[in-house]
Amino acid sequence: MPRTGAAEPVKAKGGRTRQNILEVAVDIASAEGLEGLTIGRLATQLAMSKSGLFAHFGSKEDLQLATIDTARSRFISDVIRPAFEAEIGMARLWKLCERWLGHVQGGVCSGGCFFAAAASEFDSRPGQVRDRIAEIMNEWLGMLRKAIIESQQAGQISTDVDPIQLAFEFNSFELGANWAFQLYGDQQAFGRAREAILERLRRHATRSGATLLPPADKQRRRVRTKR
Amino acid sequence: MPRTGAAEPVKAKGGRTRQNILEVAVDIASAEGLEGLTIGRLATQLAMSKSGLFAHFGSKEDLQLATIDTARSRFISDVIRPAFEAEIGMARLWKLCERWLGHVQGGVCSGGCFFAAAASEFDSRPGQVRDRIAEIMNEWLGMLRKAIIESQQAGQISTDVDPIQLAFEFNSFELGANWAFQLYGDQQAFGRAREAILERLRRHATRSGATLLPPADKQRRRVRTKR
Repeated sequence: MPRTGAAEPVKAKGGRTRQNILEVAVDIASAEGLEGLTIGRLATQLAMSKSGLFAHFGSKEDLQLATIDTARSRFISDVIRPAFEAEIGMARLWKLCERWLGHVQGGVCSGGCFFAAAASEFDSRPGQVRDRIAEIMNEWLGMLRKAIIESQQAGQISTDVDPIQLAFEFNSFELGANWAFQLYGDQQAFGRAREAILERLRRHATRSGATLLPPADKQRRRVRTKR
Repeated sequence: MPRTGAAEPVKAKGGRTRQNILEVAVDIASAEGLEGLTIGRLATQLAMSKSGLFAHFGSKEDLQLATIDTARSRFISDVIRPAFEAEIGMARLWKLCERWLGHVQGGVCSGGCFFAAAASEFDSRPGQVRDRIAEIMNEWLGMLRKAIIESQQAGQISTDVDPIQLAFEFNSFELGANWAFQLYGDQQAFGRAREAILERLRRHATRSGATLLPPADKQRRRVRTKR
């Protein structure tokens, strides 16, 4: 997946636009943390004056909050919008999970999952920044749970399944993959997370739900065909 | 689980001992991050002179490395030693997982899982500190995998199971529980992680392995008994 436009922001008349600035800010915050995202650091990166940036953002906290919302917009256009093109139920649920792992693996943000990093950085620092991160992550978990419930209502996932438990497990796999990728550069971890999610979906799928998932053990079958 | 002695370090003759200092350092680093752990911050907390601390640790990096190894020692005495009292195989594997979740939930470190926080903080900062964190986490994952393989060798877990995949999933659940606890104060997440691990162990257990796990649906059975 190619990196988004953040690497080469366009210079607008009278300086960079607020949007251009924020795209760069998301990249800095992903790699160096939201606390590392000072107006001075951003000014250096953009070769802009600090006063020019202060015209856009009154304080470091304003800048952090605007950066978080820009990361949220990227997530929506990269993960949620494409998933919502799939039919409601299992197809959408699987697409949400698949795009989500792709979003983190694809290096859309240079420092891995923006929100995993931001949550870990701010979880013990009360304030508006932490609250906004918690709110956005809750929004996402709520969306995952809703997609599970919709799959149950469509008769595609067994109603024995607890949507809260399943969403917790899926979120854990994403965190686990991001963690292994960040710490060890372990690309295979995304495959493990994908496999773990698919295994759960297959196990809980009804017959009609199972037809909406990618076929199991593709590789193994390929080997058998060759023999 | 009561907090360890770090809260009230004993003053040794000629000042605090290196060990006392490091116990306080682990608490600071857990709550405020390893980067927040400066010699100045530690001197204030301990009401010691900076020069007194420099006698113990030559640099901030030395202090960070010594703090990481102190956190590792806590983990060994709180999680690994008790688990190694259990018999090799499924009993030990389950005990490792159970103690691990208890270690994070019990607030032994005031900022949640020390290593999850440290890994997230340093994963994009190359250097000795990052390398040491990665090494310790790898040591732990290796121990989990070994306990799974030993359970297979003891005929207690099906040999169809991939130990690397299962260890990845267990590690993910711990990260997921720690994340939910840190961000939302969600204590229930530990129960979810425990349930997810137990469900997997039960599903892959042989008949002899299953007898070594806690009985399923204890609560539900209790409700039935009351009726």
